[in-house]
Amino acid sequence: MKRMALLVAGLLLSPASLAVEGMWTLDNLPKADLKKRYGFEPDAAWVDKVMKASVRLAGGCSGSFVSKDGLVLTNHHCAVGCIQQLSSAKKDYVANGFLAKTRADELACPQMEINRLEQISDVTARMNQATQGAGGGAEYAKRQKAEKSRIEAECVGSAADTTRCDVVELYHGGAYNLYRYRRFQDVRLAFAPEHAIAFFGGDPDNFNFPRFDLDMALVRAYESGQPVEVRDFFPISERGAAEGEPTFVTGHPGSTERQLTVAQLERVRDVDLVASLTRLSEMRGLLYRYGAESAESARVSSDDLQGVENTYKVIYGELRALVDPTVIQRKRDEERALREFARGRKPLKEHVRAWDEIAAAQAVYRDIEQRYKVLEVARGFWSKHFATARWLVRGAQERAKPNAERLREYTESALPSLTQRLFSKAPIYPDYEKVKLGWSLTKMRELLGVDDPLVKAILGREAPETVAARLVDGTHLTDIAVRKQLWEGGAEAVAKSKDPFIALARAVDAEARAVRKRYEDEVEAIENANAERLAKVRFAMTGAGAYPDATFTLRLSHGIVKGWTEKGRPVEPFTTIGGAFERHTGAAPFALPTSWLDSRARLNSAQRFNFVTTNDITGGNSGSPLLNTSAQIVGLAFDGNIHSLGGAFWFDERVNRTVAVHSGAIIEALRKVYGAEVLAKELSGS
Amino acid sequence: MKRMALLVAGLLLSPASLAVEGMWTLDNLPKADLKKRYGFEPDAAWVDKVMKASVRLAGGCSGSFVSKDGLVLTNHHCAVGCIQQLSSAKKDYVANGFLAKTRADELACPQMEINRLEQISDVTARMNQATQGAGGGAEYAKRQKAEKSRIEAECVGSAADTTRCDVVELYHGGAYNLYRYRRFQDVRLAFAPEHAIAFFGGDPDNFNFPRFDLDMALVRAYESGQPVEVRDFFPISERGAAEGEPTFVTGHPGSTERQLTVAQLERVRDVDLVASLTRLSEMRGLLYRYGAESAESARVSSDDLQGVENTYKVIYGELRALVDPTVIQRKRDEERALREFARGRKPLKEHVRAWDEIAAAQAVYRDIEQRYKVLEVARGFWSKHFATARWLVRGAQERAKPNAERLREYTESALPSLTQRLFSKAPIYPDYEKVKLGWSLTKMRELLGVDDPLVKAILGREAPETVAARLVDGTHLTDIAVRKQLWEGGAEAVAKSKDPFIALARAVDAEARAVRKRYEDEVEAIENANAERLAKVRFAMTGAGAYPDATFTLRLSHGIVKGWTEKGRPVEPFTTIGGAFERHTGAAPFALPTSWLDSRARLNSAQRFNFVTTNDITGGNSGSPLLNTSAQIVGLAFDGNIHSLGGAFWFDERVNRTVAVHSGAIIEALRKVYGAEVLAKELSGS
Repeated sequence: MKRMALLVAGLLLSPASLAVEGMWTLDNLPKADLKKRYGFEPDAAWVDKVMKASVRLAGGCSGSFVSKDGLVLTNHHCAVGCIQQLSSAKKDYVANGFLAKTRADELACPQMEINRLEQISDVTARMNQATQGAGGGAEYAKRQKAEKSRIEAECVGSAADTTRCDVVELYHGGAYNLYRYRRFQDVRLAFAPEHAIAFFGGDPDNFNFPRFDLDMALVRAYESGQPVEVRDFFPISERGAAEGEPTFVTGHPGSTERQLTVAQLERVRDVDLVASLTRLSEMRGLLYRYGAESAESARVSSDDLQGVENTYKVIYGELRALVDPTVIQRKRDEERALREFARGRKPLKEHVRAWDEIAAAQAVYRDIEQRYKVLEVARGFWSKHFATARWLVRGAQERAKPNAERLREYTESALPSLTQRLFSKAPIYPDYEKVKLGWSLTKMRELLGVDDPLVKAILGREAPETVAARLVDGTHLTDIAVRKQLWEGGAEAVAKSKDPFIALARAVDAEARAVRKRYEDEVEAIENANAERLAKVRFAMTGAGAYPDATFTLRLSHGIVKGWTEKGRPVEPFTTIGGAFERHTGAAPFALPTSWLDSRARLNSAQRFNFVTTNDITGGNSGSPLLNTSAQIVGLAFDGNIHSLGGAFWFDERVNRTVAVHSGAIIEALRKVYGAEVLAKELSGS
Repeated sequence: MKRMALLVAGLLLSPASLAVEGMWTLDNLPKADLKKRYGFEPDAAWVDKVMKASVRLAGGCSGSFVSKDGLVLTNHHCAVGCIQQLSSAKKDYVANGFLAKTRADELACPQMEINRLEQISDVTARMNQATQGAGGGAEYAKRQKAEKSRIEAECVGSAADTTRCDVVELYHGGAYNLYRYRRFQDVRLAFAPEHAIAFFGGDPDNFNFPRFDLDMALVRAYESGQPVEVRDFFPISERGAAEGEPTFVTGHPGSTERQLTVAQLERVRDVDLVASLTRLSEMRGLLYRYGAESAESARVSSDDLQGVENTYKVIYGELRALVDPTVIQRKRDEERALREFARGRKPLKEHVRAWDEIAAAQAVYRDIEQRYKVLEVARGFWSKHFATARWLVRGAQERAKPNAERLREYTESALPSLTQRLFSKAPIYPDYEKVKLGWSLTKMRELLGVDDPLVKAILGREAPETVAARLVDGTHLTDIAVRKQLWEGGAEAVAKSKDPFIALARAVDAEARAVRKRYEDEVEAIENANAERLAKVRFAMTGAGAYPDATFTLRLSHGIVKGWTEKGRPVEPFTTIGGAFERHTGAAPFALPTSWLDSRARLNSAQRFNFVTTNDITGGNSGSPLLNTSAQIVGLAFDGNIHSLGGAFWFDERVNRTVAVHSGAIIEALRKVYGAEVLAKELSGS
């Protein structure tokens, strides 16, 4: 027992002995470790530049400024939503790619928002003050939310259009930071390659390596109708990085669960992952078949299918990690070491109960999970119209309240993102809406049960598919003017509306709010209040040498270009453009687009195409630049290998790898395949 | 520790203290317990009658003779395969039901086989002799299979058409019994209600109770063109059973996993259940959408969808049981108690290593599982044509070998069942075949990987869907004459065939056999050899008071009519016909068929419809009669409640329930809804 605990404590205490693990906040980089490891110590200017040149795509991705004129490099799969929204049956930019001949031809993305981090400040004391003596239930939740909204509102001031402020919980409540961002909502598409090369190998090659993907897109941030002028941007290094060379990933990893307790991990495994896996698999089968019915049905559903398949694999990988007895045992050992540490020290002793309180909250979660997801997460209502209707119904209620009392997504600070989506011109396809809604209503019935009064109220005596068709045929929410009218008309207009989706959102609302309240008061608040305690134990044991779990905020991870060993065989770190032609069969997803086949003679087949590094990243890092020590872009992160999926719970340097597009391949393709000389020049600064 | 072990040992040692658990073989009934519990001790005549009046449907169900003229009562969902095969777009007996006006109108099921158990004999000594000194690997597997085939061939003699003999491993190899059956292959459909009432409530109500299902069908066994005359059959009791009254279920539970080691259970959980759940969910989404495309696509795929949804829920329930920490802890405690018992006793001591050897075999299984399922279980080739092609390819190879050396499904004893399916007239729908095969080939590629040489050989440069279309369009295996020709032509004809499915089956065969051999030699043989050891420990500890895991052989379970408590609220044991009308909405699956709506005034609304009992059953028991102490039918088992799914691993009498159609409802419906007076009279013996 002692040896085990010590061993684990050793791991926790000396991050320098750990490999390249860590998604570090920019104000707490492991500088000593970096210096020892790479002979490189980032100075304040380097860090500031990295912060200002990195961007977040509010939809869930990362990117970076790559020219003084606001050009942003990200992944194709991060921009595909916009690309599809700009497409139609006649002009399919997903299939055929897009290149704006001039800046005037750049097309505005209906609902893309870009955030650039400007400042981080510590608000831990203020947040702790606000919740002091509130216990760990409803009162805690209420005060915590109110204080967050207050801090954010003060930060935003009257500049909500251009400023976004988020209070971020680090270490699951061990610290609270205020992140202030510059917000850009006028974002236009400049370049996207064909889906066939952006996602060459498709789902069969997903999370595998070698890969041959040009998973890139270029968008540009505008303000007042002009390209944004930026001071900080990353120049591109065509040479890229050599094997063994250090690489730094700057970006916005979404979430990791490395600091969860064992009880939380078991709940994630037994409840969330199993439920997600079955749901995603069923959606996958549904969308696979729907897409086979016609070219148009394939077109309108393909990005959903891609998203579903991607998430399915993530969840599958996470589940495999959590059913691996060695992983969960490792977590048990870590937890035992922390407990022992706390138990033996006077000021920490009182925190030991935190584990039990968190465990008790998991039991509540297990009880309410299905209802919470069906009603509040709206999994029972898979439909763009339902999302719109809920924003309208809740928006009317919430905007009538003081800012600090609103649901968090309706605070003044949050409204610009919400209204961008609410009034988006993105097309909605009625047939597809019916299919999605009809199916998800069958899931609602399955998960809540036929005899649930709300289910009976929604379905009445009709089949779910009949209800879906009636609603989609009857709605006027396709009309942006109608949405605007309802938004501006507020509670009265919404109450009067006879739109069937508004009626549905109204019917669901009370119960959805009730289960959300239970979740927030009886699960989340308990977890947060106790996570603060656990963070104190952790800090006492490990000092500042720990990084917080990912929170979709800016992080830096370090690593080197390096292959790995798969089932006894070495995997080389690089692929080449020539390799893509060797893998081409002509049948999707292994069919290179015509543009590439036509350019074969011109292309440098030895040009490195994709490569892998030991950087510790996760979902949300898509679109992140890989930088060298001179802060030049050497690659564009777009994936992890299959072993990276266990990274949600722990980082295994032996096999966990980041997969990136080589900087040289980006320039090579822009020049030789797409004739995008102007953009290539802008990118390469030449 | 001690108390826990003792507590568990106590459970294992005194079956009388256990509740109604157990699927007992007919030669080892817990008679003392039955007497104590119900004041009823079945005598030899009762047992013999029960044995001879019960039947097995070789496709995976149970049933019973209910008249002297060979009439068999089973579930609609056990006969639905036949009902669908007899249907066409114009005559849809699944939707509309079927009633043969006279016996001459009864329709032959293309591939139904009925088995009636005639004799059980113990062949343990002979089997043990055959494998003595063979270790636990390839040699053990070879000798064991050969001896089984020899025993079965001797038992069948020259009467393979009418006799079926199976060597059955009980207690996972603790004992071997020879089961001799009378085989009936001429089985004809006499009556089936509409699917809408057979499966009223459909998937939303599946595994729930209250239920309102007439899940019944009547088929008749024929020989030489005449109804079989049977001496032993069960009369029906229209009164049924009262609350608290004992009920006996006789039938063929398929498999349980109550005696698996913890290492095996963890493998089942982590590997088999997770893989099945994702596969079934995806099939579910695919079939849901395919069925929505047209009335005909719904018709041809509906029984597959029903099967997939049913299995999905079973797997989901099993997974939930195995991720429940209390269930796996219970198993760990049981195992520890057994180990302790063995360790302390001289002759048993040497068996302790059995647990470790079984655990080591699980690691092999985890390695080969995907390949085994894709290639040998043919999950990569979801197609009736592929099944046909494999039977032809392997049949030619195997029939050329001596009987004892063949793959088990090609022994002389097994051939009648195989050829019945091979030459079946069941329709095959090309469009549906393409959809299934195309999708499953994408799964093959996903699971084995794009770069697997066999995957490359099968797909070449084509998309999976293109390959599927080419194969289905090019095959001649739809023609029964072609199948006969290839079967009779043997190896030479098969080698010469240019049929694309024959070519596919040939291409896959070597690798499929290779991975099967690894499974049989390195997993199954190790498990079997060591299960024999574990069975010895178990017998020493518990005496004969244990029942073997289910093996799709005849078992008797006892219980009583009794509701249960669900989330604090009592669930009544009976529903009524009137309740079905209350639940009717008019929208499938809650739409009563017209025949019922038209008969409402005539029907006794207070007639009990479905009911629940504490009998311990599992999949394979579908169609089992529920008998009273006079061996009269009081019900027809067709389901378990949601809690019964954990029954795969342990029986929880508090909540695990069998769900049955009430005998009175069967007669009421035949008489008043279907005007099937002749059959009702035959059934009720009046």
